[in-house]
Parts: sequence; structure tokens; C-alpha cells
Amino acid sequence: MLEYKDFEEKTIERKELFKGKIIDVFLDEVALPMGGVAKRELVFHHGGVGIIPITQENKLIMVKQFRKPLEKVVLEIPAGKIDPGEGQHPEKTALRELEEETGYRTEKLSYINEMYLSPGFSNEKLYIYSATDLVKVENPRAQDDDEVLELYELTLEEAKEAIQTGLICDAKTIFAVNYWELWQYKNKY
Amino acid sequence: MLEYKDFEEKTIERKELFKGKIIDVFLDEVALPMGGVAKRELVFHHGGVGIIPITQENKLIMVKQFRKPLEKVVLEIPAGKIDPGEGQHPEKTALRELEEETGYRTEKLSYINEMYLSPGFSNEKLYIYSATDLVKVENPRAQDDDEVLELYELTLEEAKEAIQTGLICDAKTIFAVNYWELWQYKNKY
Repeated sequence: MLEYKDFEEKTIERKELFKGKIIDVFLDEVALPMGGVAKRELVFHHGGVGIIPITQENKLIMVKQFRKPLEKVVLEIPAGKIDPGEGQHPEKTALRELEEETGYRTEKLSYINEMYLSPGFSNEKLYIYSATDLVKVENPRAQDDDEVLELYELTLEEAKEAIQTGLICDAKTIFAVNYWELWQYKNKY
Repeated sequence: MLEYKDFEEKTIERKELFKGKIIDVFLDEVALPMGGVAKRELVFHHGGVGIIPITQENKLIMVKQFRKPLEKVVLEIPAGKIDPGEGQHPEKTALRELEEETGYRTEKLSYINEMYLSPGFSNEKLYIYSATDLVKVENPRAQDDDEVLELYELTLEEAKEAIQTGLICDAKTIFAVNYWELWQYKNKY
């Protein structure tokens, strides 16, 4: 079995390429453990949350929005970036985003998982929660002012169909639908 | 229901920030559908594949490797980037990566899903396949020369435990373990 030192790539030099609002981009020259050097393109991101909100009618609340990198409109679970002040408390981000994007609050937020989305070049980490016992907020916090969102509530079958048609097409949402289906199986048997 | 035009963000100006080997980075100024402008940070990527290889003993073949953006060693399903010549045929990438990373070939590669990993800023798309009826290759293609890999075979319970300990921590692999568990439920009932 190999040790950590047999894998580790130590940075020889790090070059900053871009400091953005959402991402920072770096180019590293690294020393390979077996000798030699290589380049590593790196995108640093502060991370985010995704929420799986299930209504009393057993429907999944989803958000339709335009995604510039894809140049299309897609259906996703509610999600958002962790704000600087929320760093150590992603559950706060989850409650905030749930309210901003769906207009619901909950006392029942459950941690499911955390996952790096693209570990080959990025450290972006997503925390995933489920939310049940949803309560409609009378005057919900405003949505981000540069986002157009439309809300939908889907049954499991409708969500699976939306994966087939490609309207649902991102990793966190496909994971969420799979997780929801598996959860229903586990409660059934 | 809103129309596409109510969502679309048209690019006013695109600025190239970095052209890399793996990613290209751009900064767009976009016209918002409700008026006004905003910036969009964009990372373009040629996409990749992930493979869920299941042995005859019902174990999942996984790869241990160092991921520079995370500065740690993690356990993932075999995966790799789509080469320029493979663009329209990700199943070719899957067969190549399966052989390079695990030393196995298969005639039974099944398409499962395709998913955008981080649609907020990137167009990176991952095609996921399962591979069964694995056959050991006598002289497998060489691994990439800047990668140190170690192979493991895990049962479902071991894989679930590795998610708990954080050794498995990326979206495609957590999805794969969930998918495998759901598949076993479906075959059982």
C-alpha cells in the first residue's frame, strides 16, 4: 500500500491568473512524487449548498433558471454559494437559500452529504441537506437581484422523466433525485 | 410560465482570461432579461467520463489518487478527460480510461447518465457508464505518466463506509455508490 508521500504533489511555484467574485484561478508547477514536474490548473471556490425540499404532498421543490455556462434553462434543486460570514455554518446558507429561492422555512433541515464537484481542477465543495416540514414564509427574503427563478414541484416520477429529457442535467440534482428514490425504497422495505 | 427569452442572458462582451490545457477561463458581461447587466465568470472544459466497474464478486473497482485542488488523497471511480478525437464518442473514452486505470476491458459498457458538475460557472459535463463482465488485459495501455494510482476493490458496505470517513468525497463517486445501492434494491424487490 502506498503512503501519502508516494502520492503528494508539492507546489514549486503558484501563479495567480484571475481573482474573481466567484472563482480564483491559479497555475501551479508541482513536483511529482516519482520525479519530474507537471502543471496543475486550479480553480478555487468558496463552496455552496444544495437543498432537497420535500413538501407534505411528497413533491420535490425545484428551481428553473438560466445557466450561462450551459446557455440553457435547467431545473435544479435550490442551491447557492456560501457567503464569507457563513463559512463554518453551511446549514445557515441552506436555510437562507431555501427561503430566498422557494419562500419556505423549516425547522427540519437534515445534513445528507458533502461532496467535491470537480476534484480534478477545483476545490468547490457542496453541502447537501434535505428539508421537510416546510412552512410558507409571509414576506420571504428577496432573491438575488441578478437571477430570474421559477418554482416547480415535481413528483419522483416527474423528476425522473425530467432527467430523461435533459431538463434536469446537473450532478447535485441527479444525485438528489437518486437519493430521494433510494430513501423511498428504504422506507418501503 | 416564463419563456426562454425571460431567462436568457445575452453576452455583451467576452474577455478571455486564460487558455489552459484542461480549462479555458472567460469573463462575460451579460444583459439581464429584466434589464441591467451582470458579470459571469466562466470555466470551459471538454468534459469527461466516469466508469462504475463491477467485478464478478460484486465489488466496485476504485482508484486512489492525489488531487491537487484538495491537497489530499481520495478514492474515486475510474475517470478521465475526453480527448479531442473522442469528442462525439465518450464511450471510447470510457473504454480507454477503464483499461488505462484498472487494466480491465469489457464488452458490456452501459450508459447511465450525463451530468454537468458545476453549472453555476462551468460547462464541464461528465458521462457515466457502468462496466460489467470485466476481462483482465495482459498488457494494458499505460497510465498517464504524471499520475500515481492505486487500485482497490470495495463491497457496497465498504464504499458506504468510505463515504462516511471522507475517503470517498467527490460527486461522481458518491453518485456511483448511491446508484449501485439503488440498483441492488431494484433487483432485490
